[in-house]
Amino acid sequence: GLHGSNPSTYSPVCIEPQDGKMEADEIDALPGQPDGVDFDQYAGYVTVDQKAGRALFYYFVESPRNSLSNNPLILWLNGGPGCSSLGYGAMSELGPFRVNSDGQTLFRNDFAWNNVANVIFLEFPAGVCFSFSNTSSNTSSDYDNAGDTTTAIDTYTFLVNWLERFPQYKSRDFFIADESYAGHYVPQLASTILYNNENTNQTVINLKGIAVGNGLLDEAITLRGIYDNFWTHALNSDETYKGIHKYCDFANDTASEKCFDFTGQADDEIGDIDIYNIYAPICLDSSLKNGSHGSVHDFDPCTDYYVENYLNIPEVQKALHANQTEWTHCRDYAWTDRPPTILPILKNIIQSGVSVWIYSGDKDGRVPVAATRFSLNVLKLGVKKGWHAWYSEKEVGGYVVEYEGGLALVTVRGAGHLVPSNQPQRALTFISSFLQGTLPPSTP
Amino acid sequence: GLHGSNPSTYSPVCIEPQDGKMEADEIDALPGQPDGVDFDQYAGYVTVDQKAGRALFYYFVESPRNSLSNNPLILWLNGGPGCSSLGYGAMSELGPFRVNSDGQTLFRNDFAWNNVANVIFLEFPAGVCFSFSNTSSNTSSDYDNAGDTTTAIDTYTFLVNWLERFPQYKSRDFFIADESYAGHYVPQLASTILYNNENTNQTVINLKGIAVGNGLLDEAITLRGIYDNFWTHALNSDETYKGIHKYCDFANDTASEKCFDFTGQADDEIGDIDIYNIYAPICLDSSLKNGSHGSVHDFDPCTDYYVENYLNIPEVQKALHANQTEWTHCRDYAWTDRPPTILPILKNIIQSGVSVWIYSGDKDGRVPVAATRFSLNVLKLGVKKGWHAWYSEKEVGGYVVEYEGGLALVTVRGAGHLVPSNQPQRALTFISSFLQGTLPPSTP
Repeated sequence: GLHGSNPSTYSPVCIEPQDGKMEADEIDALPGQPDGVDFDQYAGYVTVDQKAGRALFYYFVESPRNSLSNNPLILWLNGGPGCSSLGYGAMSELGPFRVNSDGQTLFRNDFAWNNVANVIFLEFPAGVCFSFSNTSSNTSSDYDNAGDTTTAIDTYTFLVNWLERFPQYKSRDFFIADESYAGHYVPQLASTILYNNENTNQTVINLKGIAVGNGLLDEAITLRGIYDNFWTHALNSDETYKGIHKYCDFANDTASEKCFDFTGQADDEIGDIDIYNIYAPICLDSSLKNGSHGSVHDFDPCTDYYVENYLNIPEVQKALHANQTEWTHCRDYAWTDRPPTILPILKNIIQSGVSVWIYSGDKDGRVPVAATRFSLNVLKLGVKKGWHAWYSEKEVGGYVVEYEGGLALVTVRGAGHLVPSNQPQRALTFISSFLQGTLPPSTP
Repeated sequence: GLHGSNPSTYSPVCIEPQDGKMEADEIDALPGQPDGVDFDQYAGYVTVDQKAGRALFYYFVESPRNSLSNNPLILWLNGGPGCSSLGYGAMSELGPFRVNSDGQTLFRNDFAWNNVANVIFLEFPAGVCFSFSNTSSNTSSDYDNAGDTTTAIDTYTFLVNWLERFPQYKSRDFFIADESYAGHYVPQLASTILYNNENTNQTVINLKGIAVGNGLLDEAITLRGIYDNFWTHALNSDETYKGIHKYCDFANDTASEKCFDFTGQADDEIGDIDIYNIYAPICLDSSLKNGSHGSVHDFDPCTDYYVENYLNIPEVQKALHANQTEWTHCRDYAWTDRPPTILPILKNIIQSGVSVWIYSGDKDGRVPVAATRFSLNVLKLGVKKGWHAWYSEKEVGGYVVEYEGGLALVTVRGAGHLVPSNQPQRALTFISSFLQGTLPPSTP
């Protein structure tokens, strides 16, 4: 528990005994996994509140031949709030496997991030998917208290205990990477880590950098960016764009009825497209396909259905050491706290010397690159290395600008909100550079 | 020749005898064409200036079972100025065949426009590819006189004579469709047709509509649109965008040296991408592939190389009734006239009652949809049916807004500059609606 602020005695969180749990968490094999798996996988629960019986589920994949490598450790966090890092991050984006269209078997992702790192996927907060609280039911609960603050504390508690369970990673370079609403989680978690590192007598977490993907940084600026992006990408009429600019004051939250009409019109005009990837196909046939398989080169828009089927197979839940439960991608919360902007926290992190990369798939309509650029401009940072193309496999992978103080904005060409789903090779290129502390290659 | 303006005697162009030429132009089969071709093809030369020996090459594909259909006639024109409607339009975009990656054989385009129309592809002006002038050489020539005016006259002359050669099409509904710089050609040709229809005692051409694709409508507005599009699509830095807006006055052509610096910077920042389709792959291996084939669903960025190889095979040139020559995609001209804007001509055509569709692939960076929208706004037309999504095969095919007077702006989602190459099915959907005089479907 919390013991006050004397560095010699300050223990921010409870550490539970972890003896033997790592071994217990090792996965023999995931049902339907392909042959030739050359890395170790673990999954299980870490208790973050003994009294409430609150426990977070994780899935951890090591690099191939990890005992011979010194690859860093990444914690991957999906957003929502309340969406699964297992279903999205691990099984649809950067994990070693994706689910075939049969919903039963897995195929290898050649561009998985465990090629260059050891990756933890965390299901959080409690209530999401496999993670749970014993004091929660359908009517009243722990889950009603979920918000940014409790999430940062629980995630930090998870991390400290996880490092007790896997002590060989305690001194390893540590990074956090995320997506979407996790643009809130990650700066807050990084702040919590940095604060506790200074004051704790527990594990000091060797935080080297954070990578925030299509992240929600500032509520008002993001709304403006979304509607600007609709117009500049020919999804909205001139009239709607002008109406929104005239009647909507997102920053002061004094949105008029006229604003409401025009934003409604904006949403109507778009039609039935995938707002998370505006040029992508939508899922027209969500049924499982017999004998049909997937390809990492051509992201299947019905992936959610295959993943949901796979993670609800009892043998899969058993292999993952998960509670038998009905797994769904996201859970709704009455979120208790949500600061309108995360930019001041981001500025503090930059000043602490932690490397900060803000990356953005440039086909995303939900948190478009325009919103991210407008948000970063508020920080008024000097440019260290100006806007230029970066390359992956002889093609432009996107663009990058490096600011003074360790912040870089990296766009990923041709990717939507789920960057590693749409552009797995480009995603692996830039994350490799990120982990090495260099900008991605500026020549083909 | 021109005989004055008395309607009863006014013959705008010379008509050459065409007896037997249609039959002579019929193509037995194109080398390497797939089995099951169920339509007729023709190719040959139409003389447009007897004295100069100037002749334009065309390739004509009828609808399947044309004798039973009353499908309209379309003239397709590529831009440049000086690029081939055979190499681009017919062999890479909307024609019945595309060239396999072996450079020797053809595959069927299921979404070819001859499913719904009879399509003429014209190589023009003289000097482009198979079209020629006998009074031209490498040093002096007819070719030096090429410009918008001469092109309109030659194209009109071609049409009148072609209709003599294929008299069964004289009364057929006639449409013109184009791309890029043909945004100049088509309104000018339409004007020429409309003027001569009123005054000629020759063939009256039954012009119903024109469809201009990613067309150059206004030089200054297009330049502004290009650089705005670079910025809004995250291809350029904020600094470059601001510099261009500050220092470039495209409308008054008083571009400063600073403007030149910033536009140069804009081009540098983009890196090595296909500006005609900003998210598409580029051609990394232009060699011909043995036994390798193409798919209409996945446009091969090296298509130009396969087409160039195919059209230089002597047997192919012979089958096309073309002169044996070195065929290349485009020819450079010292273009003699090029009005800075085509908008006043466009306005006249709208007022004449001819249907005008302006369509735009929304991934094009060369003549982006932003440029087209800014250009059309100059016409200050009332909106008849507001901006909304249109559908093709249950997906959003793009967006459409219909203006008063018969003008519609139609975007094609996920297409670049060569719309039917990138989105063949969506292109067929909207052109079918265009030919039927209706907007494309507004529900899935």
